[in-house]
Amino acid sequence: MRKITVFCPATIANVACGFDILGLAIDNIGDTMTVTMTSHKKLEITKITGADLPMGIDENVAGVAAKAMLKDLDISCGFEIEIVKNIKPGSGIGSSAASAAGVVYAINELLDRPFSLKELVVYAMQGEKLASGSLHADNVAPALMGGFVLIRSYSPIDIISINSPTELYAVVVHPQVELKTSDTRKILKKEVLLKDSIKQNADLAGLISGLYTNDYELISRSLNDYIIEPLRSLLIPFYDKVKLTAKQNGALGSGISGSGPSIFALCKGEESAVKVKKAMLKVYIDNGLNANAYHSKINDNGVKTIKDEVLQS
Amino acid sequence: MRKITVFCPATIANVACGFDILGLAIDNIGDTMTVTMTSHKKLEITKITGADLPMGIDENVAGVAAKAMLKDLDISCGFEIEIVKNIKPGSGIGSSAASAAGVVYAINELLDRPFSLKELVVYAMQGEKLASGSLHADNVAPALMGGFVLIRSYSPIDIISINSPTELYAVVVHPQVELKTSDTRKILKKEVLLKDSIKQNADLAGLISGLYTNDYELISRSLNDYIIEPLRSLLIPFYDKVKLTAKQNGALGSGISGSGPSIFALCKGEESAVKVKKAMLKVYIDNGLNANAYHSKINDNGVKTIKDEVLQS
Repeated sequence: MRKITVFCPATIANVACGFDILGLAIDNIGDTMTVTMTSHKKLEITKITGADLPMGIDENVAGVAAKAMLKDLDISCGFEIEIVKNIKPGSGIGSSAASAAGVVYAINELLDRPFSLKELVVYAMQGEKLASGSLHADNVAPALMGGFVLIRSYSPIDIISINSPTELYAVVVHPQVELKTSDTRKILKKEVLLKDSIKQNADLAGLISGLYTNDYELISRSLNDYIIEPLRSLLIPFYDKVKLTAKQNGALGSGISGSGPSIFALCKGEESAVKVKKAMLKVYIDNGLNANAYHSKINDNGVKTIKDEVLQS
Repeated sequence: MRKITVFCPATIANVACGFDILGLAIDNIGDTMTVTMTSHKKLEITKITGADLPMGIDENVAGVAAKAMLKDLDISCGFEIEIVKNIKPGSGIGSSAASAAGVVYAINELLDRPFSLKELVVYAMQGEKLASGSLHADNVAPALMGGFVLIRSYSPIDIISINSPTELYAVVVHPQVELKTSDTRKILKKEVLLKDSIKQNADLAGLISGLYTNDYELISRSLNDYIIEPLRSLLIPFYDKVKLTAKQNGALGSGISGSGPSIFALCKGEESAVKVKKAMLKVYIDNGLNANAYHSKINDNGVKTIKDEVLQS
């Protein structure tokens, strides 16, 4: 039988002005997952290291995503799943998405690709539904497809890959605090001012335009969030200070990664990203709060195979 | 002395999902304007044909825009302005913008271009302020710069030219009804639902992406307006029927041009545009309502000089 190990990247959803519709994949932080095809028709999670997560298929995002996918296939084999979590659940950089995207990608590879990447997104979304209660794709789509991704519509699903400049780097700083998903939701308002919605639209259009034209200055001017950040940032310690520090150290812009507490920044070039990362991290260290920090080029590939073995049976 | 005649194109603002931030210039309909440089320091509107508009400098959009511009220049000459209006005031295709954009462009040419096009936009906006009470650029910017234009910010002013596919055509149908600007404003709500704002954002990002990647299908899927159209379309006779007819006849999509009553459609190729134009127009004719209709390639140039004469003094 065959066994495949994949790297499942972390992802940054929302990206300032793109609440609920934009996401991007990063490279230096992610889970690995090994899926083994077996001869008996059984789906099983055999091992999880790095996080305390449920092993039951129906309780685990990878299990749910894999099960949804296999329901649409008439096959007699089964799969054993081993997950090594490096992305801490609840960090705001797509921990559940990495597991959901990784497992559907790996099974699809083992079965010689019956599904397209966009079809895999739909199965992976089932995992996200278990994790967050809603079918959303702004982490699983970039995790599977790489790069910047726009979720234009859910009904019908319409996912667009957006160009991104080659020197664009992302920084993520994850302060070690826990946010309740219910709190990050409750703090949002159901209505927004039309004038704020127009400003946000203008920046979103500017960001997309800047990404296509490799215009770092335009990307920088457009990385604003008038709707979500003013509310959710209240839940993240030292948010304003970290954001200001990022900008002062040369970041193009920054914002909340997903629903937080991680904060992302975008930078032009690796040197700038390293400088921004250190400066953002220092804010937490100086204030006695533990934090992790990463920097990475935008990951243009998404989930990728790192080992593919044929086992002697 | 020198005398210059310019063509001032009509423009479509908003473009479905881009309320207040997007505009585009068209080609087959527009005003002409002749500006003569004189030796005495006086600004004067000497003739207006085609519409009943005030001739006083401070009461006319072209006068106000020209005056704002000249205030920043230390010159001893003056200008006489003749305007031939083909764009009916109140039609929703940038009648006032054409006058404001045309005059600042012509004077700038006569003075050997002391200002950039983007600087001219700011002067032309003063004319718009007289016409509508607010400084907006979503008609004057495309009128001056051509093509698709994004107004990312007003403070500071930030105007971005967006790519558009070469086979993209616009259709405009103008039913001969009068809308009061005050009514088209009053009908808008100050707040919008967050979920509608997200849907609109997603389509706007899709539209911008489609424009850069020449993806007509994506442009078509993205031409939706969940926020303004449901309200303002109530003021336009047979709106739903005209929109449905446009789609059934192959338009990529359609919407309200500016604040109406004109309705625009975007099409791929001239043949499609002609078919859509005829079908949209027929809805009004069949219902006993007068209407004008135009089709045009997207105008990539904006205002342009059509005659440049040096007079014997």
